[in-house]
Amino acid sequence: MIILMNKNTTQEQIDRVIEWISSAGYKPHLSQGVERTLIGAIGDDRGRIHLKSAAFLPGVENVIPILKPYKLAGREFREDNTVVRVGDVRIGGGEFVVMAGPCSVESEEQMMECGYVAKKAGARILRGGAYKPRTSPYSFQGMEEEGLMLLKKVGDKMGMPVVTEVMNTVDVDLVESYSDILQIGARNVQNFALLKKVGRSCRPVLLKRGMMTTIEELLMSAEYILSEGNEQIILCERGIRTFETATRNTLDISAVPVLKELTHLPVIIDPSHASGHAKYIIPLTRAAVAVGANGVIVEIHPEPEKAMSDGPQSLRPEQFYQLMDEVNLLSNAMHRRIEGVQ
Amino acid sequence: MIILMNKNTTQEQIDRVIEWISSAGYKPHLSQGVERTLIGAIGDDRGRIHLKSAAFLPGVENVIPILKPYKLAGREFREDNTVVRVGDVRIGGGEFVVMAGPCSVESEEQMMECGYVAKKAGARILRGGAYKPRTSPYSFQGMEEEGLMLLKKVGDKMGMPVVTEVMNTVDVDLVESYSDILQIGARNVQNFALLKKVGRSCRPVLLKRGMMTTIEELLMSAEYILSEGNEQIILCERGIRTFETATRNTLDISAVPVLKELTHLPVIIDPSHASGHAKYIIPLTRAAVAVGANGVIVEIHPEPEKAMSDGPQSLRPEQFYQLMDEVNLLSNAMHRRIEGVQ
Amino acid sequence: MIILMNKNTTQEQIDRVIEWISSAGYKPHLSQGVERTLIGAIGDDRGRIHLKSAAFLPGVENVIPILKPYKLAGREFREDNTVVRVGDVRIGGGEFVVMAGPCSVESEEQMMECGYVAKKAGARILRGGAYKPRTSPYSFQGMEEEGLMLLKKVGDKMGMPVVTEVMNTVDVDLVESYSDILQIGARNVQNFALLKKVGRSCRPVLLKRGMMTTIEELLMSAEYILSEGNEQIILCERGIRTFETATRNTLDISAVPVLKELTHLPVIIDPSHASGHAKYIIPLTRAAVAVGANGVIVEIHPEPEKAMSDGPQSLRPEQFYQLMDEVNLLSNAMHRRIEGVQ
Amino acid sequence: MIILMNKNTTQEQIDRVIEWISSAGYKPHLSQGVERTLIGAIGDDRGRIHLKSAAFLPGVENVIPILKPYKLAGREFREDNTVVRVGDVRIGGGEFVVMAGPCSVESEEQMMECGYVAKKAGARILRGGAYKPRTSPYSFQGMEEEGLMLLKKVGDKMGMPVVTEVMNTVDVDLVESYSDILQIGARNVQNFALLKKVGRSCRPVLLKRGMMTTIEELLMSAEYILSEGNEQIILCERGIRTFETATRNTLDISAVPVLKELTHLPVIIDPSHASGHAKYIIPLTRAAVAVGANGVIVEIHPEPEKAMSDGPQSLRPEQFYQLMDEVNLLSNAMHRRIEGVQ
Repeated sequence: MIILMNKNTTQEQIDRVIEWISSAGYKPHLSQGVERTLIGAIGDDRGRIHLKSAAFLPGVENVIPILKPYKLAGREFREDNTVVRVGDVRIGGGEFVVMAGPCSVESEEQMMECGYVAKKAGARILRGGAYKPRTSPYSFQGMEEEGLMLLKKVGDKMGMPVVTEVMNTVDVDLVESYSDILQIGARNVQNFALLKKVGRSCRPVLLKRGMMTTIEELLMSAEYILSEGNEQIILCERGIRTFETATRNTLDISAVPVLKELTHLPVIIDPSHASGHAKYIIPLTRAAVAVGANGVIVEIHPEPEKAMSDGPQSLRPEQFYQLMDEVNLLSNAMHRRIEGVQ
Repeated sequence: MIILMNKNTTQEQIDRVIEWISSAGYKPHLSQGVERTLIGAIGDDRGRIHLKSAAFLPGVENVIPILKPYKLAGREFREDNTVVRVGDVRIGGGEFVVMAGPCSVESEEQMMECGYVAKKAGARILRGGAYKPRTSPYSFQGMEEEGLMLLKKVGDKMGMPVVTEVMNTVDVDLVESYSDILQIGARNVQNFALLKKVGRSCRPVLLKRGMMTTIEELLMSAEYILSEGNEQIILCERGIRTFETATRNTLDISAVPVLKELTHLPVIIDPSHASGHAKYIIPLTRAAVAVGANGVIVEIHPEPEKAMSDGPQSLRPEQFYQLMDEVNLLSNAMHRRIEGVQ
Repeated sequence: MIILMNKNTTQEQIDRVIEWISSAGYKPHLSQGVERTLIGAIGDDRGRIHLKSAAFLPGVENVIPILKPYKLAGREFREDNTVVRVGDVRIGGGEFVVMAGPCSVESEEQMMECGYVAKKAGARILRGGAYKPRTSPYSFQGMEEEGLMLLKKVGDKMGMPVVTEVMNTVDVDLVESYSDILQIGARNVQNFALLKKVGRSCRPVLLKRGMMTTIEELLMSAEYILSEGNEQIILCERGIRTFETATRNTLDISAVPVLKELTHLPVIIDPSHASGHAKYIIPLTRAAVAVGANGVIVEIHPEPEKAMSDGPQSLRPEQFYQLMDEVNLLSNAMHRRIEGVQ
Repeated sequence: MIILMNKNTTQEQIDRVIEWISSAGYKPHLSQGVERTLIGAIGDDRGRIHLKSAAFLPGVENVIPILKPYKLAGREFREDNTVVRVGDVRIGGGEFVVMAGPCSVESEEQMMECGYVAKKAGARILRGGAYKPRTSPYSFQGMEEEGLMLLKKVGDKMGMPVVTEVMNTVDVDLVESYSDILQIGARNVQNFALLKKVGRSCRPVLLKRGMMTTIEELLMSAEYILSEGNEQIILCERGIRTFETATRNTLDISAVPVLKELTHLPVIIDPSHASGHAKYIIPLTRAAVAVGANGVIVEIHPEPEKAMSDGPQSLRPEQFYQLMDEVNLLSNAMHRRIEGVQ
């Protein structure tokens, strides 16, 4: 951490900052510029939010953090990519993994159709919502435990691991008993009690970025899970909120190479929530393959116009088959590139 | 809801939309423009998110909702202002109510000093955090139940009602037993399980807008609480996230007149979290009085440079006394205006 | 345009709105819902900004525009893709066109090296800035006419058409005499005087989206150019400003399929300004190919650490050769897809 | 400027950075932390954008600027408030200055009515647009020179100085000959050619913040004008673009105290463009007085429903009289405060 003193700072103020740094357990380091005095606080400043209080000392203009605030999530802690294993699927290895299924589990018939299509097309993980975070209390809130049962039943039948969202600490044990992966939704990315709870689970966690979460904050949320002992985390970029309204959210495609640089955790993309329109999902999935993501999670529905949630962004079966064809084509081209280069 | 057909729509497509509207329980109403056909769906469209699936029907260009999605929170449901009562304090009546206290309860001594300053200066409600939502798992997470006890003890001593944040459904009963008002923090504004839980409490709820929440979504979150039966809600604007980094968040001061128009619920402002710097809090509090807010909630600390959280945005006692002087001066001027005009 | 009346509207208010619509040259169309009255204004509402004044009539709750505000830029006006021709290069046809060169023209030697690398690697258009829009008046402002001459000289030598930015109406004639394409920069996307001026030029225009411009506003800026008679426009997505600071701007990759749906104009991506870091440009260019853009414009420099502007986002020659290899690989894969499908 | 080396940096890389700093004319200063090496570049780093190229040197993780990039606009350059004088009006002194008039000059009659209302209510400066920056080429573009003449005629008659927008460098001389203040609109805040041109004018400049402009960038735009010699600048906060759509833009009220801290230039607020709705303008103007702004600029119209631009946000005469009453009441209260305190 570096403390920048203002232009007319006095020796007395500098002395007080130096004393304050020492009393906080850091080693002060003075650096005199032409116009400004800087005072470094040497030591591990990961508890830096407390250190920010230095901004309050007389003569201080600004406090500038130097180290990244996360540790376990960072490439410095672990250089090699983490590979998350679920059944025989490996996320974060060479394969581009497609997760697919309906937004909400609505009935056994609907779930079976989705499972059949997902399997036939080559998806590796089956998704389906049983607890739905809906903006309106009057909207369909999900089938809850019955939904979990149907999801697992279809997953078992198709031989596919399943993923579903858990929204409340009290539901974690139940969801864990049905689902192979626990999803933390965008609205709960900073529900710290929930992060701690899934951090003590033995199930892998699919952690979605919130619509106003910075990449650094996403990694801090992963750090909550990691610091409780669970290292099986898949990060998911699903669009951020901006001024643009042509799409539901703005897919931050650059988050993939940025995260690949900063963290060892696998990164997937959710083009369905990012765009909010089925018609944009295939090109965005192609972009996900090309940019180097480890997979996508997409919503499909046998009859989107009858979906109880997220109909406009759900792919029909024939659209999903086309998506998988294009994924395969580009994945193959990318692999040839990788083999050629390395 | 209005369904806009695209330019080259066919009669068959129009017929299918009309049929779909009828089957969804609405009455279709056709309107032929020069370039476009519009089809209205007459009926209460508050479950409109499902209706949005119409976007998927062939020939449909766009689906435009007409009614506001909330009901109980709206002025149409209740024209008169809701006044929230806590002890002898009335929030949403004529008085500008100041809530003050430390970000975190840190010790009995610190809490007593804050309580003394708050009381002496004329604050009406005492705040203090016992469960802290921290971005980093390595930061101070709050004193939990011990913090609750200290907060209540000081509140009782000073004769002031208290407010504190509850972050997890499993803590609601405990927090309720100590605190006069339950605060839902910005990061939990769409933690729907928590909203439902406090909706069944008999305590008033202070609901903070999230940094990524639209005004409409904030009202939908209030609707979750209202629909469970709890009508004692105070809304709080605390800054939204934008591209500007000179302040921690961007205080959306216009949210006050917008909310006053849309809802009967009282609205306060949190200038501490909005700006993130103590030096901006007094002018922003003056703006809160002038724009017509029902109060503010501010952070104070006897020694901000030693605070365990949010030091840079906490007011020293002498700054808080000045803030209260200015609040009183402007409140009086505003009252003279109101009496003069009405 | 649709006018939504508020709940307790009176017949008198409705009559006044109907009269107002007629006097504005539209045909009114009344539609009575369960809770609300809607009044349509039938006719071409492209002058709708004026129509929005209806919001001021008593009893009106909201005014909802129906038609898109652009005409010449839209797919409805021209269904087939516009192909922009510059020399023997066709932008918007099947080829993925790479434009490359330095941020600023700095010297003949530097420009020659860039031209050599661009040509050798397979770029089709040479870029180079002569007038630089710099945030600071103390930063290098470009070589102006000397820069234009050097750019053209190198372009001629390499047999490549050139593109450069024009910032001021009074410079258009001069820039036009040297450059094959006129670039309108992000900061001038709503400099309407400049748009009108280049709209009367016979040179193609590369129109960059502003960092806070919506897709609709970008198309309205294109409409300014089109309405003056110049139909040779290339749109360029170059990142929008959001709360995320890990990249310089946030590349809105979804803008490509959205624009492809709405307009017939070609769309390219500028990954250099979008990300601000050379290390992210190759993966983002791959994404540009995969998502269906018509090309990219990228910054290269023989020695980025000595660049007078935008050094951190300029590619070294060897990085640019790699970029072109990957573009070719993915373009080929995409073409096989297109041929297979169509 | 501080250069942060990455974790595994080598001595060779450090040496190269030190050499690079020296060759760029700065003095290097090494600082060894526990985990990281920092290298300061001592000297005036206002040309820091070029210095950022250091990010490209091997082993460099990040480059952190220390000094603010503006000089003449800063409080360090001039501690006392700049007072802009126009006729007998002083902006930036003790008075809260109201500027009012129509969005567009539409006719002599309309302009006369606006002038009469503005004068009678106590506004000090008359506004009126002759060149209008419209999103659509099909919207009314202003009366141009005829509008300028009418504006000046009415200003002369009422004995009020006038302000109007200039959009193009070639129009500056003409506008200057009619208008007492030159307004630079939000869309031209980074039209650097225009900034330089008005920087050489002897007229005061009203510089509006762009909807995508940071506070620092606004000050850099002021720096362009100042560096050409014109020191008579009034800054204007007029709302920034965010995800919230309940208002046209989001008024960044905190920009006032932030700017008051950073710069000596006067700061006013434009509540009309910030909110986009007449109904919110009075409370926002009260907030402007209370937060410490030096004035407001508001749009008025005798019949807003007939306005050729910005009707929905224009105040009727009776609303404007009420606004002035409230301004006077709060200004007086604020003055009593200032006199009491100082």
